[in-house]
Amino acid sequence: MTASARPSSVRKHCAILAAAEQVFLRDGFLGANMDELSALSQVSKQTVYKHFGSKEALFIELVTTMTTAAGNDVHDEVPDPATADDLPTFLTDYAARQLTAVLAPRILQLRRLVIGEVARFPQLGQALWDSGPARAMTSMTTRFARFTTNGWLRVDDPATAASFFNWLVMSEPLNHAMLLGDQAAPDTAGLRRHCSEVARVFLAAYGTNDTKWNTSR
Amino acid sequence: MTASARPSSVRKHCAILAAAEQVFLRDGFLGANMDELSALSQVSKQTVYKHFGSKEALFIELVTTMTTAAGNDVHDEVPDPATADDLPTFLTDYAARQLTAVLAPRILQLRRLVIGEVARFPQLGQALWDSGPARAMTSMTTRFARFTTNGWLRVDDPATAASFFNWLVMSEPLNHAMLLGDQAAPDTAGLRRHCSEVARVFLAAYGTNDTKWNTSR
Repeated sequence: MTASARPSSVRKHCAILAAAEQVFLRDGFLGANMDELSALSQVSKQTVYKHFGSKEALFIELVTTMTTAAGNDVHDEVPDPATADDLPTFLTDYAARQLTAVLAPRILQLRRLVIGEVARFPQLGQALWDSGPARAMTSMTTRFARFTTNGWLRVDDPATAASFFNWLVMSEPLNHAMLLGDQAAPDTAGLRRHCSEVARVFLAAYGTNDTKWNTSR
Repeated sequence: MTASARPSSVRKHCAILAAAEQVFLRDGFLGANMDELSALSQVSKQTVYKHFGSKEALFIELVTTMTTAAGNDVHDEVPDPATADDLPTFLTDYAARQLTAVLAPRILQLRRLVIGEVARFPQLGQALWDSGPARAMTSMTTRFARFTTNGWLRVDDPATAASFFNWLVMSEPLNHAMLLGDQAAPDTAGLRRHCSEVARVFLAAYGTNDTKWNTSR
């Protein structure tokens, strides 16, 4: 089957999601107009509902798709560091990749919309949590358990260490951007400084004598 | 002047804010009905606008008032620890007070509303930032500079250390509750465990040999 012979239902599905991204991010859940959305997708409104069931289900699918895609840029194909000496750089680079993905303006805007709707519409928050932070922390839990076996970390509870690492990375820049807007995100140099300090703090708390980076000052 | 002789303009101001808390938290900014709000306040709509100028300005004043009041419970009249040995407990207790204030359901709901409105209405986020995290971090910056002079901490940049401490405390429980709802907030024992680990991680990274708590394992 060639690319041009891709089943038209997949093409429609993707067109609807792309239109949903545009309309929901601009107008929010309540404000999003399904007539405009189907016109943008170049399918009938009936087709939109046939594919996604409801406006709610379409928004949940959009949250999952956008968050998963952003996460793929962070987690995919990153080999473990070769030696204990490479661990600080590994953690710094991982943190920088994660922040770059999370601080993208459309991902920030998605997060704001979801948080604003959580009281009315809790499945949205659950979808973002599962495909965003929970996925990142699961991936780091496995790694930190491995690094403890290696002798690079001293971690009693890898899930707790993964949670601390995740939120050390995310929280200051993310909460800043949540409350103060996209322009409050750090520039490249500021992001690098933040990630480097995160790695230092993390290794001071969870590293071994081989990996406590720069803490014997 | 006795309490009953309190100027009626102050009484009206407070009655309007109390009604605003009820209506804005329930219905959001766009959904809030100013007729209902003035009826609840037992003042005329004209009086509401005379006191606050606009619906926007009233919401900003509500955010500042609620956030400042929540912060007062955290910052007020907490003496510095007497000795280096008391520092871990001091930090753990401070963290627990801060989280208890921030995780109160009506403060969580206020934060969700503000974040949901930031794109349309940036002054709201600024008001919450200034009277919430910025105030907390300023207070801890002063303390951490003093503790560095004492020899209890090794901190090159007290503002950075205060920011890391603040977000170590807040971020996991706060982001959990933002996305997963009020019932995702930790119970008392979980909150205590979290705060204790925050103090350990912080002191491992920024403590001196006198105060690195439990990190020589």
